[in-house]
Amino acid sequence: MGTRAGIVVTGTEVLTGRVTDRNGPWLAEQLRRRGLDVAAVVVVGDRPEDLQAALDFLAGSGADLLITTGGLGPTADDLTAQVVGDWHGRPSEVDPELESRVAAIVARLTARRGWRVDPAAQAAGVAKQARVPAGATVLEPVGTAPGLVVPPAEGRSGPPVVVLPGPPPELQGMWPAALAAAPVAGVLAGGAELRQETVRLWGTLEAQLAATLRDAEPELAGLEITTCLRDGELEIVTRFGPDAQPAYDELAALLTAEYGDTLYSTGPTVDDLVAGALESRGLTIATAESCTGGLLVARLTERPGSSAWVLGGVCSYANSAKEAMVDVPTAMLAEHGAVSPQVARALADGARARFGADVGVGITGVAGPGGGSADKPVGTVHLCAVGPDAVVARSVRLPGSRSAVRERSVVLAMQMLRELLLGGPPA
Amino acid sequence: MGTRAGIVVTGTEVLTGRVTDRNGPWLAEQLRRRGLDVAAVVVVGDRPEDLQAALDFLAGSGADLLITTGGLGPTADDLTAQVVGDWHGRPSEVDPELESRVAAIVARLTARRGWRVDPAAQAAGVAKQARVPAGATVLEPVGTAPGLVVPPAEGRSGPPVVVLPGPPPELQGMWPAALAAAPVAGVLAGGAELRQETVRLWGTLEAQLAATLRDAEPELAGLEITTCLRDGELEIVTRFGPDAQPAYDELAALLTAEYGDTLYSTGPTVDDLVAGALESRGLTIATAESCTGGLLVARLTERPGSSAWVLGGVCSYANSAKEAMVDVPTAMLAEHGAVSPQVARALADGARARFGADVGVGITGVAGPGGGSADKPVGTVHLCAVGPDAVVARSVRLPGSRSAVRERSVVLAMQMLRELLLGGPPA
Repeated sequence: MGTRAGIVVTGTEVLTGRVTDRNGPWLAEQLRRRGLDVAAVVVVGDRPEDLQAALDFLAGSGADLLITTGGLGPTADDLTAQVVGDWHGRPSEVDPELESRVAAIVARLTARRGWRVDPAAQAAGVAKQARVPAGATVLEPVGTAPGLVVPPAEGRSGPPVVVLPGPPPELQGMWPAALAAAPVAGVLAGGAELRQETVRLWGTLEAQLAATLRDAEPELAGLEITTCLRDGELEIVTRFGPDAQPAYDELAALLTAEYGDTLYSTGPTVDDLVAGALESRGLTIATAESCTGGLLVARLTERPGSSAWVLGGVCSYANSAKEAMVDVPTAMLAEHGAVSPQVARALADGARARFGADVGVGITGVAGPGGGSADKPVGTVHLCAVGPDAVVARSVRLPGSRSAVRERSVVLAMQMLRELLLGGPPA
Repeated sequence: MGTRAGIVVTGTEVLTGRVTDRNGPWLAEQLRRRGLDVAAVVVVGDRPEDLQAALDFLAGSGADLLITTGGLGPTADDLTAQVVGDWHGRPSEVDPELESRVAAIVARLTARRGWRVDPAAQAAGVAKQARVPAGATVLEPVGTAPGLVVPPAEGRSGPPVVVLPGPPPELQGMWPAALAAAPVAGVLAGGAELRQETVRLWGTLEAQLAATLRDAEPELAGLEITTCLRDGELEIVTRFGPDAQPAYDELAALLTAEYGDTLYSTGPTVDDLVAGALESRGLTIATAESCTGGLLVARLTERPGSSAWVLGGVCSYANSAKEAMVDVPTAMLAEHGAVSPQVARALADGARARFGADVGVGITGVAGPGGGSADKPVGTVHLCAVGPDAVVARSVRLPGSRSAVRERSVVLAMQMLRELLLGGPPA
């Protein structure tokens, strides 16, 4: 066990699930790149005693560095800075210079938005945000909240605590300054290199893979292998120190030999592969979606620069839209119904023709919970991808909730595009 | 402090951020409805000692019920059942009847998918999943993994542990059986009613609200108030026991008096409000999106039954698509550029006309990171919502990353639809 970090995510809104934490995962990845493993992420509400208990737990489990996120706002329930300071024996006080810097930021912000705010309330919020533990390193605000690096007070021991704001853009903007602070740099200097490699399979049972790994166990010493099945994609992530590189090379060879028929990537995601193929071949793409409601084109356009290959898409939710926007024939809808392989093909062809794209994708199905029938139960989805020189079509019955059916359909469509453009395992 | 629960989310894939945990939030909400507060959620990897430490931490912090998620798969790194059993002094053994039930499920599954799998590997996976702590209550599999309720062994003490699988549909499907198990029912009987109320503001600074709450503090005893700012929406969630209902009524009256001009909801989300207005007024809607890439129509169709009012949408990413699919005039694109208030209006009008909808929405902007100019920097977004008898238009410059700009634009569009259909605070 090398150098490890512990993360505390604060905020009742995260604990109760109203907000999804994106900071824990982001920090874990940043730390891994610096050779630090994360021992645990603890999510607590806005009660000071719960935050203290989380700090005690992580320090007690041997973490060399602690990071907290959230609880730096101007409201009374934002207590992180003070609790962390007290935990390390550093009482908090207002830093007057910091106070005027924060005041200037807040004044600019409220002026731009034109919001009504009374000066006393604003000043109280600013003073709250400028109240920091004595002797802590201040990380300049990216939004309005300063971050902190809090080492233990003179004569005390324990891991330094990096205190970061909750909004991901603020936290990420402040991260380089946190890394540069002396107490953090000291811990990082002790982190050994940790490598990570990923292999992705489409169409292999997790239990089958488990048997392969069990049989090969003696050769895999020094590798930490985790497998994860997600919407049909089986992801094998291996973490190891430089010494174990030969063991990893053996694992990679084994996976290629045993699972060549389902192995579609030794690194890139299916999104990377599809975008790369479209870009390098100079192809454009358009979609026509029904049950997925635009999620496929939203995923394709999530990528910076995707305007070079995505022309657009239609969410043809109503039958009238299928006819008017992508030329699905009325007679076809009447004969086969909107949820049919024929209509999936017509949607793909229609998207291709209407947008003038090289590749067209059509998706139609019953996402549920209503709308199913004995003939076409909830989860029935037909997909079709048409390219310049090939067609890939699939009809499936997917399990799960409305959102699961929508998400899995999008993953399947991405795998079909990968097959259409690059070959490899059938989607 | 009433009855509290602790949640342990296991899995290196969650800890390292490759998979976002959806179970912690879902469980927190279910527990709250039963009167149990969640003390903390701890995310740990697949190391047994980290799972043990998390159980110790949560039990030590006074949790009356523990819940674990994940780690029930057929692979060697899936260790939760055994670790929890050992922790409560109950060694694990294969349950032969459970083994044959799981075997039947796995056989059906592999047959349906037509996957290659050798019988020995499959049998080993099944035996692993049927290995359960002696004396635990088995929760029948929804996928392939059984869940468990594990009370402490005879003569030992500690909170009962509910062991649930990681995939959200499986976990959710198993939840009713978990609640019905005797050790869980016993804890729940001790949970007092916990009420939760939500007020939502659009356009109030969090610091302003904080000042109001500070001033009113003496009257707010017994209320746990958390505020959360999310993409411009300020959410005030208050949790309280039945005794504090009069205090809550006072808070609600205060918020209405002070923030009537930005208060848009005392419960429903903006999605609820927009869907309700469309449905009750019998109106249909269509969208034309550029920078948001289909995210708005995907959000509108997330809702079961939305096919009654959503006709569809166009993601007109390329200029050619703006012209061909929603009739944005070529001359307008040349004169004002694709990112302009004129084009936002033309997109809304075009969506309305082409789909034959009552309401049309147009969005065009620069999501970044590329594509910005001095004139139209990254974050510039123009939006327009056109209804049967009104128009709402906004032009903004949003901060943050590509995905932040896209997400915030969608929230703003939802608020504009709320204003268009229901009035209330300007979006």
